[in-house]
Amino acid sequence: MWKNASEVMETPLHPSEEDQPSPALRDTWPGNPIKPQDTPDKNDKSKAVGFVLVHAGAGYHSESKAKEYKHVCKRACQRAVDRLNAGALAVDAVAAALVELEDSPFTNAGMGSNLNLSGEIECDASIMDGKTLHYGAVGAISGIKNPVLVANRLLNEAQKGKLSAGRIPPCFLVGEGAHDWAINHGIAPCPSEKMATKFSLSAYKRNKRKMEMAEKVESGFNHQAKKRRQSTENENGSGLLDTVGAIVVDREGNVASAVSSGGLAMKHPGRVGQAAHHGCGCWAENTRTQNPYSTAVSTSGCGEHLIRTMLARECSSAMQSDDAHQALLEAMQNKFISSPFLASEDCVLGGVIVLRCSRCCDAQPSPDIQAILVEFLWSHTTESMCVGYMSAQDGKAKTHISRLPPEAVAGRSLAIEGGVCRLVETRSTVD
Amino acid sequence: MWKNASEVMETPLHPSEEDQPSPALRDTWPGNPIKPQDTPDKNDKSKAVGFVLVHAGAGYHSESKAKEYKHVCKRACQRAVDRLNAGALAVDAVAAALVELEDSPFTNAGMGSNLNLSGEIECDASIMDGKTLHYGAVGAISGIKNPVLVANRLLNEAQKGKLSAGRIPPCFLVGEGAHDWAINHGIAPCPSEKMATKFSLSAYKRNKRKMEMAEKVESGFNHQAKKRRQSTENENGSGLLDTVGAIVVDREGNVASAVSSGGLAMKHPGRVGQAAHHGCGCWAENTRTQNPYSTAVSTSGCGEHLIRTMLARECSSAMQSDDAHQALLEAMQNKFISSPFLASEDCVLGGVIVLRCSRCCDAQPSPDIQAILVEFLWSHTTESMCVGYMSAQDGKAKTHISRLPPEAVAGRSLAIEGGVCRLVETRSTVD
Repeated sequence: MWKNASEVMETPLHPSEEDQPSPALRDTWPGNPIKPQDTPDKNDKSKAVGFVLVHAGAGYHSESKAKEYKHVCKRACQRAVDRLNAGALAVDAVAAALVELEDSPFTNAGMGSNLNLSGEIECDASIMDGKTLHYGAVGAISGIKNPVLVANRLLNEAQKGKLSAGRIPPCFLVGEGAHDWAINHGIAPCPSEKMATKFSLSAYKRNKRKMEMAEKVESGFNHQAKKRRQSTENENGSGLLDTVGAIVVDREGNVASAVSSGGLAMKHPGRVGQAAHHGCGCWAENTRTQNPYSTAVSTSGCGEHLIRTMLARECSSAMQSDDAHQALLEAMQNKFISSPFLASEDCVLGGVIVLRCSRCCDAQPSPDIQAILVEFLWSHTTESMCVGYMSAQDGKAKTHISRLPPEAVAGRSLAIEGGVCRLVETRSTVD
Repeated sequence: MWKNASEVMETPLHPSEEDQPSPALRDTWPGNPIKPQDTPDKNDKSKAVGFVLVHAGAGYHSESKAKEYKHVCKRACQRAVDRLNAGALAVDAVAAALVELEDSPFTNAGMGSNLNLSGEIECDASIMDGKTLHYGAVGAISGIKNPVLVANRLLNEAQKGKLSAGRIPPCFLVGEGAHDWAINHGIAPCPSEKMATKFSLSAYKRNKRKMEMAEKVESGFNHQAKKRRQSTENENGSGLLDTVGAIVVDREGNVASAVSSGGLAMKHPGRVGQAAHHGCGCWAENTRTQNPYSTAVSTSGCGEHLIRTMLARECSSAMQSDDAHQALLEAMQNKFISSPFLASEDCVLGGVIVLRCSRCCDAQPSPDIQAILVEFLWSHTTESMCVGYMSAQDGKAKTHISRLPPEAVAGRSLAIEGGVCRLVETRSTVD
């Protein structure tokens, strides 16, 4: 379906080119309703319950590197599922997935992050626990291999209550202070030069030349305003938006989300993007009286666009509507592409992964077993977005690079896809 | 009226002890409906249209310093009104008010800010323009006398469009990077030692002793968890939450908001509070199709509580309801004191100033003149909150220290007060 104001592409679930959906995921969405016979076999993994959806960024993923992006998503899903199978809750599993995504030199997070204007790496990351609604974040942090672990530690420390003399523990630390706090809390430092890769260093040199050339050309213009507006070349179209993230449901139905980013290439030192910003980079809320669904969201794309629209929280709120697919489509359209907050932007770049879950009341295989229905979706206005997903009952993760069709305009069009998965848990593990 | 779950105090508008409301502000709220005869006289100031509401923090304001707090609020209002009278738009006027509030050694912002654990000053500030919906913020910035001017400059620069080579300008900078950006944009540095005051230095020494004593006592406990929870002494009750802010309406009906803070005393270096956080420290949105009212909000209090509840944006949304007073009361009750995001907190500390404005359609004095109805309120769960307000038609500002009654419990009770003001503008200045 194509719309005029901003073109919209809708496609059904598109499984990885090389993988077929496992039984737990074979119900594509929208479409086949869940049938009782789709319940997974009660094999060794019958108690393994949980689901993870990860992204390796909304941006541009070249065909030549597609395999690498898919591999890192697969490994990240496996890490989260390993933790879920070991009994971990959602927030721990989501942090484990993020560590794997950060450790990949191909993603713009942790190792291999974009370099800033000064040729340094400064990372943003945040994590949110849908159970406690606590949030932890770090911004513009250097010299730490896994920024998400600092965010997670901040979250954990804040949950312990007040510090000495009644001081309120921080939920958001930046720069050197964040680095020092991490070291004081037992997180090992990592020399910045070890975090740069051959690829990120050569991209820096290329970008620096590009900037210098652009500035030479632009200096020919007399008017500052004209100069600014005429600069339409956008390096964000060239694969440098690969913020990573993950969302998880655990055996108890708790949700959690996390996000991590090296930020825009050639950003000003000290620039903090959506990945550290509450409500913008990730969001997770367990079900409660007013909210029929537990929801989790992680975003990727141009940090400034995601901050100003608070896209993570907007998508989470939208997920409380009846029709998840329609709700996300409308949120991406009205709260992002056509958002009044971005009225001056001609190209709105971003992507989200979302999930929502609810108890299945209509198809319980036995009174001792309770099922959680997980609806999961991704949507992006960038050229492409790489995602992976896996339930704890699966043997391996599914991965997929979602792409806008060739005729669609990045920044004004969107793609939306998703699926459903039913998780089965024994009642004794609930509450 | 007292409620059980969390006690609520409601009081009508309480003008400053020494000042009587001017004609433009004499309609207390809720109560007297606006009557045509309340239109201000068409004197020399008949074209001077606009309104400002400032706060010098929600916290504890001792009677002995009440005069100082009121004076700085009065001066801040005057600065904003001077700018409005010179034809400035809301966003410039709100920045001018903030500069005055930051320059006071009595407030916890700019000059006289709280010192952090290392004895240094690190400030947060942000500003939002309801007309363009742009936002600018700095976090943990040192060595800059007026952090709000850096936030404002970020907002202005972002509005100019992309940087060279298509780079997206930052809306949020922190730490050294923010400082360097400010200097490169012509903002003068200020040696940190000049920003500390006799009061902030002696408070630091006192707090440090308090912390050391508390840690000695606490080290007697075996269990870390117990140790944390048993530490109930809360220095945030002792007057150190004096984040400042302002909200403004200009002659065109545009709204703007800003906030600035030195943060919690003895905070960890690099800690960023709500004052730099989009949606948490301030919010401003002009009216548009979905929103019948233009709204502006600025918050004060415990940054972590205000971040986790996104109180500024929540209050702004609430202001779209019919009854402004009831909407703010419910927002403070349900989205702050009893927020599920703060379920583990026994003491929820914060305050807000809000305003909303709409065109008066029913009482136009002549076809050439249009009136804007401004409803303004403040509410706080802290012991006290100091506010000031002024319309461009007034000779001087009104100031007031709002206090919880002696029997109310700070952190669980709230006070709410406000007023209405009608601004008259010539139609030729609209659109």
